[in-house]
This record gives sequence, structure tokens and C-alpha cells, in this order.
Amino acid sequence: MVHAMAQRSEIRVHELRDGFGLDNLRPGTRPAPVPGPGQVTIRVKAASLNYRDLLMIRGVYDPRQPLPLVPLSDGVGEVLAVGEGVSRVAAGDRVAGLMVQRWLAGQPTRDVLRSTLGGPIDGMLAEQATLSAEGAVKVPAHLSDLEAATLPCAALTAWSALVTHGRVTAGDTVLLQGTGGVSIFALQFARMLGARVIITSSSDAKLARARALGADEGINYVDVPEWGKVVRARTGGRGVDLVVEVGGAGTLGESIRAVRPGGTIALIGVLAGGAARVNMTPVLMNQIRVQGVLIGHRESYGAMCRAIAQHRMKPVVDRVFPFEDARAAFDHLADASHFGKVCVALG
Amino acid sequence: MVHAMAQRSEIRVHELRDGFGLDNLRPGTRPAPVPGPGQVTIRVKAASLNYRDLLMIRGVYDPRQPLPLVPLSDGVGEVLAVGEGVSRVAAGDRVAGLMVQRWLAGQPTRDVLRSTLGGPIDGMLAEQATLSAEGAVKVPAHLSDLEAATLPCAALTAWSALVTHGRVTAGDTVLLQGTGGVSIFALQFARMLGARVIITSSSDAKLARARALGADEGINYVDVPEWGKVVRARTGGRGVDLVVEVGGAGTLGESIRAVRPGGTIALIGVLAGGAARVNMTPVLMNQIRVQGVLIGHRESYGAMCRAIAQHRMKPVVDRVFPFEDARAAFDHLADASHFGKVCVALG
Amino acid sequence: MVHAMAQRSEIRVHELRDGFGLDNLRPGTRPAPVPGPGQVTIRVKAASLNYRDLLMIRGVYDPRQPLPLVPLSDGVGEVLAVGEGVSRVAAGDRVAGLMVQRWLAGQPTRDVLRSTLGGPIDGMLAEQATLSAEGAVKVPAHLSDLEAATLPCAALTAWSALVTHGRVTAGDTVLLQGTGGVSIFALQFARMLGARVIITSSSDAKLARARALGADEGINYVDVPEWGKVVRARTGGRGVDLVVEVGGAGTLGESIRAVRPGGTIALIGVLAGGAARVNMTPVLMNQIRVQGVLIGHRESYGAMCRAIAQHRMKPVVDRVFPFEDARAAFDHLADASHFGKVCVALG
Amino acid sequence: MVHAMAQRSEIRVHELRDGFGLDNLRPGTRPAPVPGPGQVTIRVKAASLNYRDLLMIRGVYDPRQPLPLVPLSDGVGEVLAVGEGVSRVAAGDRVAGLMVQRWLAGQPTRDVLRSTLGGPIDGMLAEQATLSAEGAVKVPAHLSDLEAATLPCAALTAWSALVTHGRVTAGDTVLLQGTGGVSIFALQFARMLGARVIITSSSDAKLARARALGADEGINYVDVPEWGKVVRARTGGRGVDLVVEVGGAGTLGESIRAVRPGGTIALIGVLAGGAARVNMTPVLMNQIRVQGVLIGHRESYGAMCRAIAQHRMKPVVDRVFPFEDARAAFDHLADASHFGKVCVALG
Repeated sequence: MVHAMAQRSEIRVHELRDGFGLDNLRPGTRPAPVPGPGQVTIRVKAASLNYRDLLMIRGVYDPRQPLPLVPLSDGVGEVLAVGEGVSRVAAGDRVAGLMVQRWLAGQPTRDVLRSTLGGPIDGMLAEQATLSAEGAVKVPAHLSDLEAATLPCAALTAWSALVTHGRVTAGDTVLLQGTGGVSIFALQFARMLGARVIITSSSDAKLARARALGADEGINYVDVPEWGKVVRARTGGRGVDLVVEVGGAGTLGESIRAVRPGGTIALIGVLAGGAARVNMTPVLMNQIRVQGVLIGHRESYGAMCRAIAQHRMKPVVDRVFPFEDARAAFDHLADASHFGKVCVALG
Repeated sequence: MVHAMAQRSEIRVHELRDGFGLDNLRPGTRPAPVPGPGQVTIRVKAASLNYRDLLMIRGVYDPRQPLPLVPLSDGVGEVLAVGEGVSRVAAGDRVAGLMVQRWLAGQPTRDVLRSTLGGPIDGMLAEQATLSAEGAVKVPAHLSDLEAATLPCAALTAWSALVTHGRVTAGDTVLLQGTGGVSIFALQFARMLGARVIITSSSDAKLARARALGADEGINYVDVPEWGKVVRARTGGRGVDLVVEVGGAGTLGESIRAVRPGGTIALIGVLAGGAARVNMTPVLMNQIRVQGVLIGHRESYGAMCRAIAQHRMKPVVDRVFPFEDARAAFDHLADASHFGKVCVALG
Repeated sequence: MVHAMAQRSEIRVHELRDGFGLDNLRPGTRPAPVPGPGQVTIRVKAASLNYRDLLMIRGVYDPRQPLPLVPLSDGVGEVLAVGEGVSRVAAGDRVAGLMVQRWLAGQPTRDVLRSTLGGPIDGMLAEQATLSAEGAVKVPAHLSDLEAATLPCAALTAWSALVTHGRVTAGDTVLLQGTGGVSIFALQFARMLGARVIITSSSDAKLARARALGADEGINYVDVPEWGKVVRARTGGRGVDLVVEVGGAGTLGESIRAVRPGGTIALIGVLAGGAARVNMTPVLMNQIRVQGVLIGHRESYGAMCRAIAQHRMKPVVDRVFPFEDARAAFDHLADASHFGKVCVALG
Repeated sequence: MVHAMAQRSEIRVHELRDGFGLDNLRPGTRPAPVPGPGQVTIRVKAASLNYRDLLMIRGVYDPRQPLPLVPLSDGVGEVLAVGEGVSRVAAGDRVAGLMVQRWLAGQPTRDVLRSTLGGPIDGMLAEQATLSAEGAVKVPAHLSDLEAATLPCAALTAWSALVTHGRVTAGDTVLLQGTGGVSIFALQFARMLGARVIITSSSDAKLARARALGADEGINYVDVPEWGKVVRARTGGRGVDLVVEVGGAGTLGESIRAVRPGGTIALIGVLAGGAARVNMTPVLMNQIRVQGVLIGHRESYGAMCRAIAQHRMKPVVDRVFPFEDARAAFDHLADASHFGKVCVALG
């Protein structure tokens, strides 16, 4: 038995059908989804873009990803219908899709880590989407749909880096890189946790905005290519407790210089994918932890939402594109001029 | 007031005086040490070599290390005299030197991490040595002096990797590389902890010896250069829980392949120092932790000794050289044909 | 669509129907269960008793438990049929029921903690039982059905106490109380982890059996009512690292005396339920952790099974009763003369 | 060699000489202390009272404490002289005494836990005091001497409870009891960490002050004796993440009711010492952790001071008494009408 609201026979999507690349991202239609046992179907009302989505579209994230694919991991909507055996959520509930649909808590398995929305599972760039009922999660009430749509990937990644893995606490110093979605969430969370924030950017204007959001210090990495040393000096020689590393192997060397003995580098970035020359000796000599962080699980998501709700925190939305202009949203993201999250509004 | 036993006016040492390199390691004499406040002087009875000592002598470990230097971090002896204010140990006690003399517990600081024996602090390749009283530590009673001399660096590094950081438990699988001191201790500890051990070596004979010591599986990495894949296959596709990485950046790629999602790579090795091309993307994608491990602190040392004593574990001593032939001991270590620890016996 | 093997229309059970108490535990019949979406039905082949089952039957564990109830949390069987949307297990698989059916990993919630087999959910004292597919878990291949049936409650509780919470490691000392199911599993696991075991009992014969299983020391608590002091003396005054407390408030005082500063008391027992006078001051003065342990989650269960399989560990089965004599099995358990687990064999 | 500033031959103290009890706390003189090797002597400029000091004076804390004793664990002053081998601090430095003088980091030992100021070691109610150099710790620069004097016991206990053990993070809810020193520090720290605070008191006026300091909710426990239930209701039925339990066994029952499954009760209080009837069953059923917290170590103290300095946090000083009126300060503390810390100013 399927509990259903008014259903349409067909929905609009954007999809990759004939190949990878932004030029292959095209409007299309699909039969309106019907939730199977343990599933729910939502009417997507807002979605949000992540760099991972861009890499997925370009065929860089996983060249073996089968097509067609509806991209986008992040979206929020209203539950339209629930499948057999579903009691966790009900029609009418406002939910987001947990990005790693089947990762509820604890250690990840290879199998669980493949249950990601926006590839391999069809994502949110669609009028309707089907989720696992266990992977349909409530969002804080004070957020608009667009704001809530930013949480599943970028916010949860930042929370996992700072809290689940980094255990950042008051008095700690955190180093953030750039002003993309994850870094700006990390800035907001770090402030909430009572930590001090040093942030890097290539733009003095963005650094000024970051300071307005609460960053204690900004460093223009174009002016100061050896920012690792400078960061250390600004912590009295001690080094920072946590680096949220978004640049990958390319910036890892400076991050290693910036972190304190026994500190953590949360490796979350795929910006500069592929291999790079890294000197791992200082990792050993200063007993540094390099911790890969892949999004996060539902338990962390719940803790994050409690914190966001308590602090009535608002995600920073850079710009909103209509569903029809999804391509333009990706071009804007690729341009890297954004500060915070790029979103897509539906209906 | 100094509590003293019979004192000599001069002691014999081996030291680097005119420059780095094994050819500069020469016999010499020094005035017999007198312990200052908070210090103890020991008569060294046995010492043990680590690869770090070789790198230190070659000027690779720290090219700015001032000379002269008495090398060797590891040694055991009898307390000859204690300085003012010392009550922790007494003349006649058998003690080893804690390798990081001032690291008692908790997080390391840059300052504490510089308090290492065998450089920058004069080490154990001497008839007598002076230790911080806090850094003079008891050894398990069932061990000979030579066996006990192997504990401060290699054994504690293995213990820190497996227990303090790796939290290895029964049913876990651990991957070890080669048959040097740290790896053989890690093998013995892993067995003690109830874990399964897969070990690599370039020598089938050494693999056979490792199996005799309790290793569950051996892989000849010359025959199987892509051993990461094979390791994963031998764990049913899951991957190992912990890799004790002694090869540095050079072997890190295969280790990353071998470890399970959420697993740990304990980076302890300086064998292949310097930068290498590493692809960090899988670290992120599988939420791997790369944890630098620098020896360990006194609290871990104490826990390790309780375990060794309870299990009456015996370190594997490869070969013992007399004090006079210290140079030959280093040549043997450099040769990399050893299995377990290379030691030096004094008087 | 339900994938089914030969189905019967009716199954035999033992149930509480008219009230609590062993005299109300009577044979009955129920319609053969059909798995709903996300469920599986198993043919129960072996079951095992826990003290909790006895308390449940007596109406002590939860006086508000609605009747009728099929008791017993622990059972193993063959999957007969799976409901809609189930892919985790298949007909023919040998599985046990996870005792807390919906606790997969991480922190428990009140809601999840109520999903226990044998009350409130109907349990295993039946020819067939229905499980959540997520709560149907594989058992180690080398175990017989009877042996495997002992794992869900007692073994997992012991594992959670020692490993998940206690982080027991080689060289630690563990104090166990009595020779019931949990304590004997804790003894076997502690040995596997390389720990030293001190065990108490009122019977010298049972202490002798415990020593034969690997216990290092036994204390007859009838002869030595102040065993806390004695335990401390046998650890050189330091105290044990972990106590697995099965006696509840009644024995807590001695356990507090026995544990080291900073040590853990895993509180697992309901034997001596209700309030008791406890002096909590030493808990504070020695920074002791008293950790309630309620069974455990699926992630811990999986880790435990890997350890059991690797070590080919065999649970200690005290005595096996036929399904028809379930009442006698409970009388035997109530008698407290057992050593290890009391089991029930079905067809 | 002792590096000394102008020294007096005699100092004034308050001490217990003839017996326990406030009436036996009398002015006296002692020879001016001279620091031994590894020690420092400070000129005490401010001190602060804790409930422990009162219990110590009454002979309740440790009836076997030898007399004479100079009470008070908490004090701040200027280093007058350092003994042989001291390089960590220098004459002229402003330092506090670490309350557990020899607990630098990691697990405590019985021996280390006995190294407490104000009994068994002579404390701070004196014009000069001698500390272990390792136990002389810097204080945040923005604090007055009186403010800084409040940190060693109450503030560090609160920090250890919330951060070191409780790992409180943004979005968590913390329950505090009363408005004594530890609870008010816990309130300030909890706010700093981004947590929500519920606080109890018998005084509506004090609850109002607590709210002004940032408490989210207050409960008058006289009006609401079953406050555990109310606390749970105010967390949507979930329960709080952490209780800082200052009442001991007497209030433990309500705390157990208030905490969430898997939550922590930090047991810090000795207010209601001695045994009390406690029902430990819910601790087990909800997997609660009861964690004894004894002050804390130097590593935690350093982390706390970084947080205090970064947030320019000011301790709440209730009232300051001159050295001559030390007795009146204790009467005021015993009266329990204070809010925050009671201090003593010297010279």
C-alpha cells in the first residue's frame, strides 16, 4: 500500500544521458517515481550544488559512473508518498536526503559508501526524487527550503571534520582554506564551538567578508604563498589544532607546516585531485593525523541540526538559480567566484 | 648531594666529532658524567640500534644536529648516581632511557619532542649516560639487559602504533611491512592482542620466520609488487584495520589500497624519506586516517611493559656486537639483512 | 512478493498468556508468521537463556510488558522467507536475531532501546520467529546452532563491556564476577585480548573450571567477603583496569575498591536489582567510570564475530534442554548452578 | 644555587594545628620557605576557597590528614625564588599552583592523586608557598590576581567535566546544579562551547542571575523536587547530554532521570558525602556513564586557559575577604549563600 498525494505521471529532470561534461547536462523527463518498500518519494523544492557534483558531471569523480544520471546530492522537499513498511516519515514532512543514504552511524563500509545521491544514485536535480526512508532526514524549522538544501553535503562535511573527527573545542584554533561551501560552514561551526579561526583566500574582499562572519584572521595566499609559516607564527609558534584541507595534495605541504604537533588535518577536498608530491616526514615527526572525511553519517547530521537549530544559524547562500537555469548554476560554481552556497529553486 | 657508587674519572664513548657519516663515528673519551638536580647517571650495559640512529649518523635525520654527538637512543643500565631531588629511582636500579626524555603522557609539544636521546641529547653508545630522572624507566624483570635494550624506540613505536593510536583488538587484521625491529615487535604485539597478521618481505626465508613467530600470512613484495590488492583479497575484500607503514611515501599507495574504509595507516617509517608522489584521493574517499607515530610517551611505555611482563614476551635479537665493534653493528643494520633487533653489549 | 520455502499454517511456541511467572509459561500455538516489508521469518533451530529472560517472565524486568509474550532474546535459525524490499539476507541463510533489533551502530535512543527481542518484541521460544531484516545477523561458520544461539545477548554484552566500552588491551587486568554466561564469555574474550583475568565465585569447583579456561586467579567471595581489597593486593596495589559488574548495587562497593584510579566498572548486571546503599565518593576520588552497558549494537556484534571466527572460539554450553522442556531450562537457570550458557534445542 | 629576591625570615599563615574544625583554624607563623631542587617559592597574592577546603578543615575530607596543615588549594602569586634545576618558570613570573601538583597529563595514579595542595601538601592560606616547578602554571594575562586564583580547583573541575570527559559540543544540553563555583564555571564554559544550559537552584534570585550569565533555563528544585522529569520534558523527552553532578548520591537519582541514553553524569561533588540509596538499574538500561572527575591535569589546565584567554572570560567572584579574615571567608562559604567564588586577598 502506498500512501500518496496527488501524483503526476511525468516529472522534469536535468540529466546526463549521452556522456559526461556540462554540455551533456540536458533537460529531460522521467516517469513520476513510485516509492518501493522502505522508500519515500519527495517533491524537491530546493537543491544546492557542491564541487563534487561538478566533478561527477565532468566524469572526473567516477569515470565508470553509468548514465543516465540525475546529478546533485543536496535537496530538500516535501514527502509525497511513502512505500510499504515506512513509519519514520510521513507524507507532508519536510525532509532532506541524507547524502550517503545508508550510513546511519559508526564505521563506513565500501558498500554503504556507494549509496550516495547524485551518483551512483539519481540525485536532486529533478522535480521529484526517491529516497530510502532511513535516508530521509528532517531539517531545522527556522531554515527556508533553500537554506536547508545546503546542509546534506557541505555542512555535514564541515561538521564531521570539526566535531566528529576534529573534536574542536573552545580555545582551539582552526585553519580554513578558501570561502567555498564547506569552508564557510566550517567557519560558522568553529565560531559556535568557541574556536578561533584563521582563513585563507586569494581575495581580500572575501577575507573581509569572512572576518565579518567571525573569522579572527585572514591570509591572502597569493600574497603569502608560504602561509603555513605565517599561520604558525600567528599561533605563537604552536600551530593550529585543526586544518580543514580542501585543496588536496596541492596544499597539504603548507597545511602540514601550519598544524601543531599531535594536531589534525581533515582531508575533505578533491579540488586538486590526482597525485602530488608530498613530503610525509613531518607528519611522522610531529605525530600529525591526516584524517580523510567523507561527508558523514546520520547521527552526525542529527547532532549538527540540533546545533544549527539552537544557534538559529543561517547558511550563507551565495546565489539562487531557477531550475531551468541549472546549467548556469554550475557555470557559476565552476567560476569559483562564489562565497558560500550556490542553490537551485524548484517550483 | 649526589648518591654515588664507585665513579671513574673518564668513560669511553663512540661519537661523531668531525662530521656526519659512519666513517666519522669514532671511539673517544669523555669525563665521567655527574648527574645534576633531577638527573641520574647510569652505567650502560646494553644498547640497541634503530634505523633512526643510522640516519642521524649520516646527517640525514637532522642535518643541523650539532656535533659532537654520542649516538643511540636505546640503552639499559644500572643507576650509578642520582642528582638532587631525585626519588623516583635509586642507585642500583636497572633502567632504560625513555627515548623522548620529557614526554610523560598526553599530547606532545615541539619542545618535548626535541628531548630525544641519541640526538639532540647524547645517547647510549657510551659506558655511562645521563638521563632525566623522569625519563629513567624500569624494564620487565624477565628480560636480559640486551633484550630490554630493544624496548625504548622500536618496541614503543610498535606499541604506540597498535595500541595507543590503532586500538587494535581481537579479530582485527594488521598489515606489517618487512622484518625490521618495529615490524617484528608489531607482529608480537598483534598476536598478543588477538589480531591477525599479514606481513610483507622481499625474502621468503624471512616470511617463513615471521610465520613461525605467528604471522598468519606472508607476501613477497618482489613477487607481488601490487600487494595492496592481494591484501584486500585476503581479507575478503574488506581491507585491513591497520597498516604499520615503515616505508614512508614510497609504499603509501599500496598501503592505502590495503586498508579498510575508516581504517588507519600508522606512519612510522623514515626509510624512504623525502617527498614522493602520493594520491591522497582514496584517503578521502574511504575516510582513512594516516596517523604519524613518533615513538611514544612514558604512559604507553608502562602499559607496554605490563603486557610484555604478563606474556613473558621475548624481543627478537638478531645479532649482538661488542661495544668496540659498534661500527660493524651499524654496517649490519645498513645491510638490511637483519630480522629483529641489532644490539651492542657493554662490559 | 514473499520468497518462501515450505510453510506451515501453525507453529508451536511457549508463551506467557495469563500472567507473569514461570507457572504461566505454557505451550501454545500461533499462526505461522509471514514477513512484512523489511522483515524476515526464520525457522528457529536453537535458543539460549539469559537472566533477563527469567526476570521478564517473572514480571520483574518490565511489569508493564503486555501479554501474551513469547520469551527469549537469543536464537539462531534458517531464513524461511523474506519480505518486500529485503536484500540483506536470503532464504536459507543461517542467522541469529540481533537482540536490540534496530540498534545498528552509534548512540542508542530510547526508541531503539525498546526494540528488544523476548520483550517487548516476541522472542525465540518458538518454532518460527520474525525479525527485522536489518536485525538478522550471520553467525560464525565453525559454531553449531546451539553454540551460535548463545551470542546475541550474553556474548555481545561481554564484548561491549570489554572492547566497545572497556577498550581492554594486552597487559590489562580484568575482574569478573561469577560464572554465568556473560562472565564466562568475558573470560574467553579477555584471554583473546591478552588481558589477565581475576574471577570470583562462591564455588571452588567453578573457580577451578574458570582457571582451566584461562583465568589467572580465582577468589571465593564466600571465604573472602572483602574481595575488593584482595584484588587490589593481587595487582600490586594498582587495582584492575576493568570490572564487569554483574551484581548491581549489591557488589558495587567491592568493585569500586578493586578498580584502579581512572579505571572502568562496566555495569551490566540486574541480578540484584533495585536500590542499594552505595558510597559514590571513591568514584569521584579515584576518577572511576561506571559505564552502563546494554547488550550492544550490530557493529560491535560484527567485530565480535570476526574475533570468534578468527580464534575459532567455542562458547561454553552448560546444558541443553529440548523445546518441550523449556520450563526445566528456566528452573535450571534460576538454580544458578550453571557454568556458561543454558540452551534449548528445537527440532 | 637558589635565585632569590628579597627574602623574609618568617611568613604568616593560617593553619590547623591542634585539631580539625573551623575553630582550630588559627593564625600562625612559619619560617620563610626555601625552594628545594625542582621547586619554586611564590609570594601568594590571592587565594580562593573551595568546598573541599571546608571539608578538609572539618576533618571530613580525610580524617587521617596529619596536622599542622595550611589549608587552601587555590592561589596565585609571584615567583620569589626557584630551586636547583628549575628552568620552566623564573623569578617574577605570575603563577598559580596546579592543584594536583604532579598530574601533568594522562591517567592518574594513586600516588599522583595524593599530591594535592591544601592537604596533604600545605596550601595557599599563607604569605608564601612552595610548589613543584612542574606544578607552577601560568594564568591568563587579562585576569586580576583574585580572578586567576579561582582557576586551579573549581574552573579546572568544570573544564574537565565538560571538555576532557564530557566532550560537550555545540547543540548539546548540559544540566548544572546550584550556583557554587564549579557550576558557574560550567555555565560559562558551556556557553563558550555552544551548548544549551539548564540550571537548578533553590533560589529564584540566583536562577535569574544564572540566566543573566547565559543559562537557557532555570528550575527551582524546591518548587520542583522531581526536576529530573521536568528536565527531560524540556529536552523534548530526549534528556540532557551531560549532568555536572555536585550533590553526590543524594541527587543522583534525579540526574539519572534527566540524562539521555548514552549520556554522561560527571560526578564531581562531595556535598552530600557518604553512602546513599541509589538505584543503578537505569544506568544500565540507558547505557549511562557515571564519570568521577577529580580536578584535572596540567594539559587540561592549559587548554582551559587558552579558552579563557581567547574569550576574555571573567570568573565570577562573589566576595573578597582580607587575609586576616580568612575565618569569615569560610563562614561565608559554609553559609552557601554565595554565587560564584569566594576569595582571599593577600597584601
